[in-house]
Amino acid sequence: MNFEFPFNELPAVMRGPRVERRRVLVGGSAYWGTMEGDGRLRLDDGRVLADADALTYLPPVNPTKIIAVHISYASRSMETRNKPKPTDTPTYFTKPTTALNGHRGQILKPADCTYLNYEGEYAVVVGRTCRNVTPDEAWDCIEGFCPALDMGLQDFRDTDQGSMLRVKGADTLLPIGPGIVRGVNLFEQTLRTTVNGLVVQEAHIGDETIWGPHYVIADIARHIMLLPGDVILMGTPCHSRSVDPGDVVACEITGLGRLEGTVTAIDAPRASALGVGHAPTDTPEVRRVALGFDERVPEHLKENLRRARRPG
Amino acid sequence: MNFEFPFNELPAVMRGPRVERRRVLVGGSAYWGTMEGDGRLRLDDGRVLADADALTYLPPVNPTKIIAVHISYASRSMETRNKPKPTDTPTYFTKPTTALNGHRGQILKPADCTYLNYEGEYAVVVGRTCRNVTPDEAWDCIEGFCPALDMGLQDFRDTDQGSMLRVKGADTLLPIGPGIVRGVNLFEQTLRTTVNGLVVQEAHIGDETIWGPHYVIADIARHIMLLPGDVILMGTPCHSRSVDPGDVVACEITGLGRLEGTVTAIDAPRASALGVGHAPTDTPEVRRVALGFDERVPEHLKENLRRARRPG
Amino acid sequence: MNFEFPFNELPAVMRGPRVERRRVLVGGSAYWGTMEGDGRLRLDDGRVLADADALTYLPPVNPTKIIAVHISYASRSMETRNKPKPTDTPTYFTKPTTALNGHRGQILKPADCTYLNYEGEYAVVVGRTCRNVTPDEAWDCIEGFCPALDMGLQDFRDTDQGSMLRVKGADTLLPIGPGIVRGVNLFEQTLRTTVNGLVVQEAHIGDETIWGPHYVIADIARHIMLLPGDVILMGTPCHSRSVDPGDVVACEITGLGRLEGTVTAIDAPRASALGVGHAPTDTPEVRRVALGFDERVPEHLKENLRRARRPG
Amino acid sequence: MNFEFPFNELPAVMRGPRVERRRVLVGGSAYWGTMEGDGRLRLDDGRVLADADALTYLPPVNPTKIIAVHISYASRSMETRNKPKPTDTPTYFTKPTTALNGHRGQILKPADCTYLNYEGEYAVVVGRTCRNVTPDEAWDCIEGFCPALDMGLQDFRDTDQGSMLRVKGADTLLPIGPGIVRGVNLFEQTLRTTVNGLVVQEAHIGDETIWGPHYVIADIARHIMLLPGDVILMGTPCHSRSVDPGDVVACEITGLGRLEGTVTAIDAPRASALGVGHAPTDTPEVRRVALGFDERVPEHLKENLRRARRPG
Repeated sequence: MNFEFPFNELPAVMRGPRVERRRVLVGGSAYWGTMEGDGRLRLDDGRVLADADALTYLPPVNPTKIIAVHISYASRSMETRNKPKPTDTPTYFTKPTTALNGHRGQILKPADCTYLNYEGEYAVVVGRTCRNVTPDEAWDCIEGFCPALDMGLQDFRDTDQGSMLRVKGADTLLPIGPGIVRGVNLFEQTLRTTVNGLVVQEAHIGDETIWGPHYVIADIARHIMLLPGDVILMGTPCHSRSVDPGDVVACEITGLGRLEGTVTAIDAPRASALGVGHAPTDTPEVRRVALGFDERVPEHLKENLRRARRPG
Repeated sequence: MNFEFPFNELPAVMRGPRVERRRVLVGGSAYWGTMEGDGRLRLDDGRVLADADALTYLPPVNPTKIIAVHISYASRSMETRNKPKPTDTPTYFTKPTTALNGHRGQILKPADCTYLNYEGEYAVVVGRTCRNVTPDEAWDCIEGFCPALDMGLQDFRDTDQGSMLRVKGADTLLPIGPGIVRGVNLFEQTLRTTVNGLVVQEAHIGDETIWGPHYVIADIARHIMLLPGDVILMGTPCHSRSVDPGDVVACEITGLGRLEGTVTAIDAPRASALGVGHAPTDTPEVRRVALGFDERVPEHLKENLRRARRPG
Repeated sequence: MNFEFPFNELPAVMRGPRVERRRVLVGGSAYWGTMEGDGRLRLDDGRVLADADALTYLPPVNPTKIIAVHISYASRSMETRNKPKPTDTPTYFTKPTTALNGHRGQILKPADCTYLNYEGEYAVVVGRTCRNVTPDEAWDCIEGFCPALDMGLQDFRDTDQGSMLRVKGADTLLPIGPGIVRGVNLFEQTLRTTVNGLVVQEAHIGDETIWGPHYVIADIARHIMLLPGDVILMGTPCHSRSVDPGDVVACEITGLGRLEGTVTAIDAPRASALGVGHAPTDTPEVRRVALGFDERVPEHLKENLRRARRPG
Repeated sequence: MNFEFPFNELPAVMRGPRVERRRVLVGGSAYWGTMEGDGRLRLDDGRVLADADALTYLPPVNPTKIIAVHISYASRSMETRNKPKPTDTPTYFTKPTTALNGHRGQILKPADCTYLNYEGEYAVVVGRTCRNVTPDEAWDCIEGFCPALDMGLQDFRDTDQGSMLRVKGADTLLPIGPGIVRGVNLFEQTLRTTVNGLVVQEAHIGDETIWGPHYVIADIARHIMLLPGDVILMGTPCHSRSVDPGDVVACEITGLGRLEGTVTAIDAPRASALGVGHAPTDTPEVRRVALGFDERVPEHLKENLRRARRPG
């Protein structure tokens, strides 16, 4: 990693014991609870819910802003041909909070779009007001970590001059959860994205990410005040590909949990029929990002990437 | 009604056409939609959901404060022996926003409590910042109306010196929805509360309420700024009674819709076992309010009130 | 105090070093900063503002709810003749969030009201979601403490059946700040309220309060979820009295800071002129609470209470 | 304009009478008020404040998201050599809500940055939840309009791959206000930006903007839900230039009002000294955007642009 932190003392947010908090809708009311070892969720009011994974999930975060790192994995950097040099620094874009989605959510794909890409990531949740801090100090501002899927409608890649507002910002394009986790050493975990159960992305967070969350927070907070609840998406490894209605996409991170969503078709927007706004486009640049380059895929993922888009 | 408004022009919020907006959780994402005539919900993104009543509901409001009228129906006033005289004015209490619950919610009854009472009501949702207005001006501040259940744990009647914080403020004690409605003449509607399908409260809003929402808003806004989303609960007619786990309570208001919730048992709080705080009590005053006076009940409701607490 | 906590280990929120965070409006932007030892405020962006007390203050809290203890000092209990017995428990009321006011704020007194009373208090700010906790666990939910003034328009004492919505809930009736403080042993501090510089209330928090914040949080959180930012007002000692336009009221708590506000006249509400709502009343019960009983006042405060209402 | 609306009926938000609402901090409390014709602000509580322009201003908006149009004026399009063709469509970026600043605010320029550029704009404030609407329907979603300054630290132009997060997103870089205005025909207004009193940008909104707010809302809401309070910045005309500490920048729009801010120096961020993050850079591309091309400036602005950066 580009910026070492003092490993002689693990930051409190990564020291055990592991605590996972989830937010669920039970019979009309939103409730927080803590996961027990046996897969049951103990709501704060004392109710113990047996099959945690079958509950109705809300995002475990309530941010005022969501900031995402473009590239934070060496593998992704090579794939997109934007390899950071040793002097390079992270770059960012944003997603609106209306993009938030919960575990087992529907990820909407409009009828006139072709390329909805997955990007499995881990998210950092800010725990306290944070501005003008050093990387060492930044650790104290972190509340916990969540699995996340930074989905993108690549059909809009050719518009917005790089902000990716319409690529990354559409409603439902940020599934996050199922819980927010403290007490886990993030750098010992492995992230895997699956499509219909097949592994399509895989990375060891400690070995393969370029910048840690402390560095990224200190970087952003040089100029931008982070508030409790704010979310930072930490980038994805290589092999982002597009998925289709019916596909089940999941981001599973050891120690943090498994998040899934289902791609769901919706009609094209009404205004599009009137010719309003940039139409989804299918250009070489769109395809380059949406479909990737198969020649670089390691053998054990090749077959998965090929089969992943065919559910059943 | 105590304070006439110029009926020669119906306020805009009560003029047609009727529009009902609901907020549902669909596959992890909260979404607004508009009810269609045939019982389907058309989400704003274009999806049409066939069986609206079977959806997962969120409260259709996001208030910064919830203020409730103690007594606004002549029948309730007589029953509680607090009959307002002609010079009388409304009085209020509050519920915290954590009490909000959605349609088909679970209404929690702790194991050490005996008397959880229903109170069917209509709620007024504030649509714009409002302070120091007259009753005539207040109509423009109203966004719409919702059915609501102002549930109360009467076991805490003997504490809090009248604020009813613990009676009315516990989590889940304010089911509201399923939608927020504009374009309906509130004063031509009839409110009915049912327990397990049997009518237990019934009142014609125009004929039996003492103060209209315009009067109540003008009264409160004399000293307190109302903000968009704030909720005012307009009081309940007579025959509030207590219900038990398993009971299905509903508030149905013609023109506005039908809201239901199910009473659900939870354990007593952990701190109660340590002797912390006022214990639930079963005193004559608690019983007077919780159980009511059967001699005043009209014939056609008597049998319902007797049978309502026995589900099945 | 009624409920001991394990003094062999002071809770983290009361262990040093002292940290005071303030929120100020500097040239149009709200900013957080940390107090330095020399009375300067260091904004998070690096600016150091010389005369902290002369800044423009915002409340250092952003609660979803504000809950207040009716009586938590033995002296106040005796004065109001509501002396809790050993078995007694705290009772509560609420203030809407629109009542919040900052340091050096204007405390509004409508022209048709006579009795605006001060109550110097300390406030507890909740730092994390909290439900169904024990008193021992409750300490971890506390973010910090603030001076506060729980102002009340006693002219509305005869209405609202004990909820005090109009007594305590009007806009501006909750000055709080200037900062939120951690790292101070609350139970070693002394609270003083002054009017125009003269001490009118005085109490040692450790010696004279009946319940600690951990007890109160555990009590409330038996049934009500507390959220980050929520505020609990911990009651006032004896000798609340009414003040007039021009009076400067302050609550100074050793270790926590000094909060002040100025009583400011405004016109009576427009709706009052139309006869809407309960009119301010001047009854024996109103006077009993608003003016107190001078015979019980200790010698050293008597002259102050007499002179305090005459500024200049 | 690119997309006509039915001028035979002016949308309600542009029909008179003109109403301007401002939000000020008066003695510690935030308050809304309405401007009177004579330059006085009538607070909702009845107080009338004589010299409205001398008050302490808060932003008159509370958005969940802020979306900005890159280019919406023909003059700006030519200047930046990104002239939209007839088939072209608007593109967008975002600013975090922490960038909000009030009238008479301090616009912060870190010591290590050189190019802080002004962009006078009008902002559209969303009044209701809005998704999947046509341009005609979009008018009903608009609450009002505000003057705004979309300030940018062009030193970060070379990073963030086009999202401009650090260019446009730093704290204080979005002065907005002083009020939010309804009842003014936006398309008959003229926007002027001044630096130290000298006009540096000037455009007739109706004649020179390419897309109206109805078109932009319909475009964004194809995929992104807009919520009440959300802000859309509608782009700037040509002649954005950089300003220095001490400069007073103002955006004055006939009918809407005059907003000003003062450029204020702050230290470089602490993390920058540790080598964290992209350093401010002074490249040809940065200079091209920050300094513009003087040869294209009309005669009557040339002298102003030359003199504007020298206060006094």
